Amino acid sequence: MREVYVIGVGVAKCGRYADKGIEDLGYVACRNALQDAALDPRDIEGAFCGNVNNGMAPGQRVLSKVGVMGIPTVNVENACASGSTAFHQAYLSIASGLYEVAIAAGVEKMASGLLDLGMKDPESEMGLVVTPAWFAMEAVRHMAEYGTTIEQISQVSVKNHRHAVFNPNAQFQREFSLEEVLNSRMVADPLTLLNMCPNGDGAAAAILCGAEKAKRYGGKAIRVAASVMGGGVYQSPRETPAPDLTTRTARKAYQIAGVGPEELDVAEVHDCSTIMEMLEYERLEFCEKGEAGRLIDEGVTALGGKLPVNPSGGLLSRGHPIGATGLYQISEIVWQLRGDAGGRQVPNARVGLTQNAGAGSSEMDGGTCNINIFTR
Amino acid sequence: MREVYVIGVGVAKCGRYADKGIEDLGYVACRNALQDAALDPRDIEGAFCGNVNNGMAPGQRVLSKVGVMGIPTVNVENACASGSTAFHQAYLSIASGLYEVAIAAGVEKMASGLLDLGMKDPESEMGLVVTPAWFAMEAVRHMAEYGTTIEQISQVSVKNHRHAVFNPNAQFQREFSLEEVLNSRMVADPLTLLNMCPNGDGAAAAILCGAEKAKRYGGKAIRVAASVMGGGVYQSPRETPAPDLTTRTARKAYQIAGVGPEELDVAEVHDCSTIMEMLEYERLEFCEKGEAGRLIDEGVTALGGKLPVNPSGGLLSRGHPIGATGLYQISEIVWQLRGDAGGRQVPNARVGLTQNAGAGSSEMDGGTCNINIFTR
Repeated sequence: MREVYVIGVGVAKCGRYADKGIEDLGYVACRNALQDAALDPRDIEGAFCGNVNNGMAPGQRVLSKVGVMGIPTVNVENACASGSTAFHQAYLSIASGLYEVAIAAGVEKMASGLLDLGMKDPESEMGLVVTPAWFAMEAVRHMAEYGTTIEQISQVSVKNHRHAVFNPNAQFQREFSLEEVLNSRMVADPLTLLNMCPNGDGAAAAILCGAEKAKRYGGKAIRVAASVMGGGVYQSPRETPAPDLTTRTARKAYQIAGVGPEELDVAEVHDCSTIMEMLEYERLEFCEKGEAGRLIDEGVTALGGKLPVNPSGGLLSRGHPIGATGLYQISEIVWQLRGDAGGRQVPNARVGLTQNAGAGSSEMDGGTCNINIFTR
Repeated sequence: MREVYVIGVGVAKCGRYADKGIEDLGYVACRNALQDAALDPRDIEGAFCGNVNNGMAPGQRVLSKVGVMGIPTVNVENACASGSTAFHQAYLSIASGLYEVAIAAGVEKMASGLLDLGMKDPESEMGLVVTPAWFAMEAVRHMAEYGTTIEQISQVSVKNHRHAVFNPNAQFQREFSLEEVLNSRMVADPLTLLNMCPNGDGAAAAILCGAEKAKRYGGKAIRVAASVMGGGVYQSPRETPAPDLTTRTARKAYQIAGVGPEELDVAEVHDCSTIMEMLEYERLEFCEKGEAGRLIDEGVTALGGKLPVNPSGGLLSRGHPIGATGLYQISEIVWQLRGDAGGRQVPNARVGLTQNAGAGSSEMDGGTCNINIFTR
């Protein structure tokens, strides 16, 4: 398959938009991506749209608003990994030679309330797999196994909120102290409200093309060095620990890209809660099992550290409109590798990774893990 | 891109299943497809699932029941063309070399009631683009422009119900006389109930692979000579007639496959109403504009005619579970080209076409048109 480049990205600011639809938010993201790539809507040959909860044919409804129509359009859904699934399918459409230029969009107007993972066994019906309960169990287990502290876990929230201060598209652009995180409302012991990502709406988009067309963009074109989708085995959470979906997906991506985790300059990972970001450090092999707390203590993953994670603010602060999140992550890494990330820029970033999880990021959840590695 | 073959198909019988979920129906279709291909669930490398209305991660929920898990799974939606969209993405995953073996499934538990195309302009809110109203306008226009009669239109229902008598997986397996069709309850003048497809649940699946693996299947492997997706421009129905989505998509498929409409032996087209099947004859260039009535009069598209259309009974009689329909069509053509279609077999069929439309099949609807051509 041939090389694929991202030549334009765009987002709408994450937030609560009572009076706007996915068409309005998607318009902003897609228009920005088209302007970023300096393309006319008629240059797009194929479209892919990630969305979870907003009805039939969301891609056609969104893309027609920005003039992208009359072309094949595929709507995809993979829970919280829907945005990166749209990107992966767009990647494949370019890598295969089917299209020369494709757009991947992700849009979501969130319903209020918690995501129900849809499992029907008695434990689930008692609240086990409502997402905060699941996060809390992961935290308790990590604390028991490795001596990780709630302060270390909560520092992920402090870090990501600090990053988001420099992101004008973040849902929350303010700092929180460790005390504020620890003392915010308890949601699922030991995790407080500020250990959870917020509920918000949004849209993000990326435009992809083949190597030849990418040449005219010079250094602005960012290469997709690997785009790998993985799927879990859909067992009950009871059966933890299982072989790890994120690790095997990441290893495949590292191998395809020819880079290891030690060569990454920046990453956007799926921090739907603070503990999940820490688990991803280990699953993505940024460190050994149980060492995530150390990475936090040493500031490795903060801006200024060796491998800044979630400079955008992540799901925790930038926001998590589930159909769009994967494309927010990709947009951030593209900006980072171009040197366009403003106050949250990782100096001289050359290799970046995105990890987006849907319906769980460990093997047991039957979920989706999409990992992309980008280089300039 | 490399050649792609279908090596297994399977369906569940269309019908109303109050007590079953998509998991139950999908299990039957996927198990049948795996058995047909004599494959173990672990042989599948990638999965694609078409569904419209049944919640998050339908593919993971369905495929895990049949043991297909731990692999990349993409849920797709394109209204009534969702099943063929899943097939097209699976096709691309094989054609590109990403996977060696992939499954495309389509599943749907239908909500009661009519499909609302979601347009918000005043005409739509007065009922214009509820599907039966749209079909009725198409019928009136064809009658006015070309002298087509309601008897000719209703004969499509007679024909497809007669075909379905021989299809054990059809929702309705009984004949209706022309009088019965004409005298059934009026839905949208001039179209009566038996001019509309029924509301029903179902699931269908196909397994695809590359040329090398297909060799071991001998004549049972059916070649995908073309798989083309097209998208409309999403204008208001007011602006009829517009350039035709189905025609330009079909022409591309004919060109890629290297066959013309005159070389087709059998076709499954999107007869969501009788008039739509007649319009597809013209859009697919089985005949000139306005000549669909003549094809019906001459029996060209009935079993025994030169180009039998919808030997399965079509959407009108086999049923139209919207996420699955495209894969029911593909299953039928695979059976026809293998010579496995029993009492509804088209003798010595060698070239077959499927046409599946979502959110409308003409240019104006902003819908999706998926056309596949198969050869043996």
